[in-house]
Amino acid sequence: MPREITGFSNPLVKRVRSLREKKHRKQEGLFLAEGLRILTEARERGILPEMLFLATGARSHELGEALIADVEAAGGDVILTAPDILSKISGKENNQTLVGVYRDRLTRLPKLDRRKAPIWFVAQAMRDPGNLGTLMRIGDAVGAGGVILIDDCVDPFSVETVRASMGALFTQDIATARWGEFIAWLREGPGQLVGTSLNTNHDYQDPQYAPPTFLLIGNEARGLPQEYEQACDVLVKIPMMGRADSLNASVAGAVMAYEVLNQLRRS
Amino acid sequence: MPREITGFSNPLVKRVRSLREKKHRKQEGLFLAEGLRILTEARERGILPEMLFLATGARSHELGEALIADVEAAGGDVILTAPDILSKISGKENNQTLVGVYRDRLTRLPKLDRRKAPIWFVAQAMRDPGNLGTLMRIGDAVGAGGVILIDDCVDPFSVETVRASMGALFTQDIATARWGEFIAWLREGPGQLVGTSLNTNHDYQDPQYAPPTFLLIGNEARGLPQEYEQACDVLVKIPMMGRADSLNASVAGAVMAYEVLNQLRRS
Repeated sequence: MPREITGFSNPLVKRVRSLREKKHRKQEGLFLAEGLRILTEARERGILPEMLFLATGARSHELGEALIADVEAAGGDVILTAPDILSKISGKENNQTLVGVYRDRLTRLPKLDRRKAPIWFVAQAMRDPGNLGTLMRIGDAVGAGGVILIDDCVDPFSVETVRASMGALFTQDIATARWGEFIAWLREGPGQLVGTSLNTNHDYQDPQYAPPTFLLIGNEARGLPQEYEQACDVLVKIPMMGRADSLNASVAGAVMAYEVLNQLRRS
Repeated sequence: MPREITGFSNPLVKRVRSLREKKHRKQEGLFLAEGLRILTEARERGILPEMLFLATGARSHELGEALIADVEAAGGDVILTAPDILSKISGKENNQTLVGVYRDRLTRLPKLDRRKAPIWFVAQAMRDPGNLGTLMRIGDAVGAGGVILIDDCVDPFSVETVRASMGALFTQDIATARWGEFIAWLREGPGQLVGTSLNTNHDYQDPQYAPPTFLLIGNEARGLPQEYEQACDVLVKIPMMGRADSLNASVAGAVMAYEVLNQLRRS
């Protein structure tokens, strides 16, 4: 049976609300996801929240009921609370009727099974949560295995990233690594490192990509450091008719990933 | 010579600040763009602001000086003001050192020269300024002519859209039209209307696209209305390995547009 919490000053509300900050997410190893769609996406992957907050008076929904039953069966905490408290937790203006608190999904690099998927994203210093969330959605679309975060990337478990991922976060493995660590791991097994760059004339449709293909996406403003470009097996350029840098990082990732996927579909 | 304005309550500051609202943009036929990069992008296309606001004490920049000279030569108004007033105008937290007030760039449909570019975007009820701005950037990248907005789209001249377009707004024609009006205009001349849909098994790489190709992108949440799908010359599906709807609207637009561009490059 769900229990009810009514006050803003309730310690659990305060604690969960603190998960909007990276520091607290890191300390607790927990993060927030909101909304029936995203929580159902997670559930379909067998991932359940440790705590599930429901708005009192919200219209009942079949998928919501199924989620509550599963969380309770798994020994999770189901908590009824006022819609405005829920909004306070998620920091979103429009009311959410569901907020889940999940164990963070960070995978250590040695644990990644690179052979399970033909495409992986490697994001370097990606700063925008919208871009990272979109990259996860693209990963889901092309059947990628996940995203490896290099250098100072935005937190993959921030409320904004989770929201932008529309639940794709739960379909993708997520790892963080320093550059040297990543390259050492990559070279221990099969894997083609492909960078996009403005410093080459090699068209992105020319190479024959070989899975598992690791698509290295550089920082939104600066692109890839030269040293990183040099470490790539293949460095390619997406043709741009207007300004040279008119594609944003996640869109460039999509164009690259669909080329790799299309080659796989043809072969 | 620039003149200086020092008070928040100055009528011109108030008036320009009001351009953050759609109602006032429409009344005045003006919109705001911020930052050296975007304003320079416009200048390179021969588009100058009617008013140019500069932050007092900002570091001088060659491109900024060139912009000031051009605006003054064209009889525009160059105004020095405090950085915090400028932030107030643009509504952005981090200070901008340049804000331009531009004449709106809406083109009437009959004035669009469809033959000037092989690709055009047609956005239907696109609600997110980030998506519309990104679509403009993609348009710039693939050499598209512009974007035609159908139904209740987000304002292409909102501060958020202009910002997300990173200046691509100045490289793309922008028209608004009702659906019936658009179809009537389209059928008066050459033009292939291509829709992406989840309701077909026709792979997006199968058709031979024929320029000018009009890529119809449906609303973020609902996709295209059935009637609109039926009006398309070609209805295709982008393969998705995960959930059926995992690509967002602008990313789907990028995948489609690069397929059309790649076919053109091969032929």
